Amino acid sequence: MKDDNVVRPARRWSWGRREAGGEAVTAETPERLRRRSLLAAAGVLGLTGGAVTVATTTRSQPASAAEGVTKRITIYAVALPGNQFGYGLTPETASIPGPVLEMYEGDTLEITLVNTTNQRLSIHPHGVDYSTESDGAPFNNSFNAPGETRKYVWRSHEMTAAAGRRFTPGSAGYWHYHDHAMGTDHGTAGLIKGLYGALVVRRRGDILPDKQFTVVFNDMQINNKAAPNTPMFEANLGQRVEWIAIGHGNFFHTFHLHAHRWADNRTGYLEGPSDPSPVVDNKDLNPGNSFGFQVVAGEAVGPGAWMYHCHVQSHSDTGMAGIFLVRNADGTMPPGAQEAIDRFNGHQHTAAAAASAAAGSRAAGEGKTSLPAAPESQAGGADRTQTHVHGGTGS
Amino acid sequence: MKDDNVVRPARRWSWGRREAGGEAVTAETPERLRRRSLLAAAGVLGLTGGAVTVATTTRSQPASAAEGVTKRITIYAVALPGNQFGYGLTPETASIPGPVLEMYEGDTLEITLVNTTNQRLSIHPHGVDYSTESDGAPFNNSFNAPGETRKYVWRSHEMTAAAGRRFTPGSAGYWHYHDHAMGTDHGTAGLIKGLYGALVVRRRGDILPDKQFTVVFNDMQINNKAAPNTPMFEANLGQRVEWIAIGHGNFFHTFHLHAHRWADNRTGYLEGPSDPSPVVDNKDLNPGNSFGFQVVAGEAVGPGAWMYHCHVQSHSDTGMAGIFLVRNADGTMPPGAQEAIDRFNGHQHTAAAAASAAAGSRAAGEGKTSLPAAPESQAGGADRTQTHVHGGTGS
Amino acid sequence: MKDDNVVRPARRWSWGRREAGGEAVTAETPERLRRRSLLAAAGVLGLTGGAVTVATTTRSQPASAAEGVTKRITIYAVALPGNQFGYGLTPETASIPGPVLEMYEGDTLEITLVNTTNQRLSIHPHGVDYSTESDGAPFNNSFNAPGETRKYVWRSHEMTAAAGRRFTPGSAGYWHYHDHAMGTDHGTAGLIKGLYGALVVRRRGDILPDKQFTVVFNDMQINNKAAPNTPMFEANLGQRVEWIAIGHGNFFHTFHLHAHRWADNRTGYLEGPSDPSPVVDNKDLNPGNSFGFQVVAGEAVGPGAWMYHCHVQSHSDTGMAGIFLVRNADGTMPPGAQEAIDRFNGHQHTAAAAASAAAGSRAAGEGKTSLPAAPESQAGGADRTQTHVHGGTGS
Ligand SMILES: [Cu+2]
Ligand SMILES: [Cu+2]
Ligand SMILES: [Cu+2]
Repeated sequence: MKDDNVVRPARRWSWGRREAGGEAVTAETPERLRRRSLLAAAGVLGLTGGAVTVATTTRSQPASAAEGVTKRITIYAVALPGNQFGYGLTPETASIPGPVLEMYEGDTLEITLVNTTNQRLSIHPHGVDYSTESDGAPFNNSFNAPGETRKYVWRSHEMTAAAGRRFTPGSAGYWHYHDHAMGTDHGTAGLIKGLYGALVVRRRGDILPDKQFTVVFNDMQINNKAAPNTPMFEANLGQRVEWIAIGHGNFFHTFHLHAHRWADNRTGYLEGPSDPSPVVDNKDLNPGNSFGFQVVAGEAVGPGAWMYHCHVQSHSDTGMAGIFLVRNADGTMPPGAQEAIDRFNGHQHTAAAAASAAAGSRAAGEGKTSLPAAPESQAGGADRTQTHVHGGTGS
Repeated sequence: MKDDNVVRPARRWSWGRREAGGEAVTAETPERLRRRSLLAAAGVLGLTGGAVTVATTTRSQPASAAEGVTKRITIYAVALPGNQFGYGLTPETASIPGPVLEMYEGDTLEITLVNTTNQRLSIHPHGVDYSTESDGAPFNNSFNAPGETRKYVWRSHEMTAAAGRRFTPGSAGYWHYHDHAMGTDHGTAGLIKGLYGALVVRRRGDILPDKQFTVVFNDMQINNKAAPNTPMFEANLGQRVEWIAIGHGNFFHTFHLHAHRWADNRTGYLEGPSDPSPVVDNKDLNPGNSFGFQVVAGEAVGPGAWMYHCHVQSHSDTGMAGIFLVRNADGTMPPGAQEAIDRFNGHQHTAAAAASAAAGSRAAGEGKTSLPAAPESQAGGADRTQTHVHGGTGS
Repeated sequence: MKDDNVVRPARRWSWGRREAGGEAVTAETPERLRRRSLLAAAGVLGLTGGAVTVATTTRSQPASAAEGVTKRITIYAVALPGNQFGYGLTPETASIPGPVLEMYEGDTLEITLVNTTNQRLSIHPHGVDYSTESDGAPFNNSFNAPGETRKYVWRSHEMTAAAGRRFTPGSAGYWHYHDHAMGTDHGTAGLIKGLYGALVVRRRGDILPDKQFTVVFNDMQINNKAAPNTPMFEANLGQRVEWIAIGHGNFFHTFHLHAHRWADNRTGYLEGPSDPSPVVDNKDLNPGNSFGFQVVAGEAVGPGAWMYHCHVQSHSDTGMAGIFLVRNADGTMPPGAQEAIDRFNGHQHTAAAAASAAAGSRAAGEGKTSLPAAPESQAGGADRTQTHVHGGTGS
């Protein structure tokens, strides 16, 4: 991967970070420790030189492009098992969420969307610039009929002076893309079934991450999974990790990450001592919203299994929770982490089973979800070595 | 309209923009293209010199006032057809939402509220300064009995040093006003039935818009209308458009605007390259919240029919959507826009009819709204020239 | 209380404010005017010198600590009447919310948590630094079995350079702490029943308040109370008041404060004229979220009984409302304030009774709460001297 066009200090610095981090990734994820492929969550589209690079590992492929570079890619919309759908850079790698797409402000992305399904669908981006033909909205006649291939063009721009001292914002942001045509004119069926992904537009000089995670709160699930099948995101102590959080569906949510916090602004960093941004570790993540931030894995807290979850109690209790595993700097497992993962898998299975037996976690909503049973009815004694004792709602 | 007191560069510049934009407005809205009067959404109170100017067109009437100017206006609360209520600067022009009220920091607004109805009601502002007599809250004895006339005084102030380097905020903001007394002590019935409007307090030097739209997400409707009867907001390519978004009622919402984005801060612009504000095109709009921003219509994306909608899927699917029509710079219709409008009117009628048949869109809420039918049951083939093919939930 | 280590100007200035304000507090709260003890809401942990000071009045005990100071405190988790639970600095003072804990960036807090109950429980903080042993999450084996005593360590840090011009945020913020183990692995039962409190981490130089209020929107109640039993917060005109707002439970809310507004950033103040933060008086307060801000009581509006409430209409109508009483500068009652308080107590009783008879305000949720009855069915005539006329939903 050439980076001839990387010229700004912060960016060059980030490349160094990434490369070091990237090297470590392969070593750090022996199969025995990976509960599932992270490919779905971490598929990354690197835009480098003039060619498209498709990454199929958890390694972050940082964007790299000269101003005004136009990239052409093909995305396949594919039916997946279980009445799900996914976007992929190849039909075989279609996933939920779809690949992370990255641009620098000023870049253009020409997407050839191949609809391999028998449904009407489209691809609609947030944040970037597009004409009505690329809107992805049926009322603008912008969609793929079943089996149809269609081109969508997404452009971006840098900030410009607006009037005197103020500036019209550039395109940089943690955005997302999604279907806008399956099922309804707002793509409700496509969204619910998995047609969504992250879109990152960077400002030149932005710090690049070592790793990148996409977390989508879609109705009552995370990346269309409920605990304990939610993604376990992994990083080594000290790696710079980028989280991209996206909300979809019909319910309100709040994203919480244990032991890590970020500035509630464009990047998650403070611009300096007078940056007024609040620092948060819990943030609203409602339908159509997205935000992103970078943290240094385990910084100031050390390695371990940390939870991320929706902080709406009935949501976390019925499966909107997962693990952020921060390994030791050398990629080995920190003490207690495997036990925590086992516990998480054990008790959450129980909770999920109970919820499923009752009503189906997928159908649970604000108005229907019962509060958990009163604790008085549970065994008060806690035996820390038995996973069933740490059990959730139904244990 | 004299602007002798306009002294700051950015403001003078804005006046130039406005005047040019204003001239074009009359030409740009031939009656055949206007689905409905935009007066309700764009009633504007211009505070100029010493006289109140009431605008009854879509043209934005920028505020203009010296520091500390006191303006006296009369507002009428009026019963409207269909068990609705509205505020108006005359009884005949009462509308939902009510008129946009504007001030500069330091101004005072003395409002004589005439209650022409047989209900208890009041007017309660957000953001500005008022004593308990002008609170609009019944528990402070601040309301109009049926038929009663009562005065409310709203003041405002500039920022002041708080302690060393920090400052106590001034009043500038995209605020709103609403009833706080009809039906309950929180004015729930008045709000639901239409007693609300936008209140803009500007800081000196703020950029003034060419046009101004008020969008109120009130329970499951927009400005008390469901698609396709929601307001179609219109501007010419290049006009500086101010959106004022307000939330009311009982449900959570997210406001999304296609193809335009803004800084999530006080103005929608960036203060400069180190302004940390995220740039967004989707933002929470929950009861009592309000925000505003300016965009240049069609900038970087071109003219066309762009959708604005709530991004909660069940909400947009049942009617919380509308059109932002960006015409060509000369006011003519861009290619495809009329077809998109026709399609929107056609399919949304279908969706609305289906939803209405099922349960009534007005009563739909988070806990009660069914997800749309699975797309498998819909005709897969899409005929782009038939509006029914682009149909929503029920098509 | 020694403040030898207070060296920064803004901070020294604040100390002066506090001391003056603190003196006035005792005088300003004669028992006849206090509807209830504010101890629950305003229990404050002052960290001074090397000793823990426990304040049991409404007086704010500002934090004071050298960098890196370690404080050791004991917190008791206690069963309270009515199937509630509370944290306290002594078993006798356990309250809902628990005591406000304060630190300066760089400080460490070592908490010995004594579980006096027969339930599994823990203490989990937001915002600060902790290892997995202090996570408070059962899956990390971090909780107190019934009757067990366990130590939790919370650290904090200042901002540091991240890469070139950007900075990794420090710990400063308006955070909170809560149970993460009772009832479910997310502590749902503990939270609902009262195991929560505010945690403030200050940056050196932050302005210190005269008074401090904690407002927790927990499901459909405020500090586990419904109106008119919600806390009445009191201050004298001109006192610098710090509000700490926390959300918990299963529902979305918006916090609204009448006649006062704040910058929506880390402190509520603007950093200067180019601080882009919006100014707000209504803000989302969803589960797991927290924010804080300072206002000068009655500034620009005068003294009186001001309402704070959730702006979701069905929530305020069923009891999510309370009073912020701003007395005269000398602590005497302003005209009309007592009448407003009486009215609030009267009508809200009515509303609460009606809601309770119908379904129980505790069980009310977004999907279940009926809209209030149409006002047509209510008496239109308003007699301002009868509290029942100001009645809410059911009057
Ligand atoms: Cu959730
Ligand atoms: Cu909505
Ligand atoms: Cu609420």
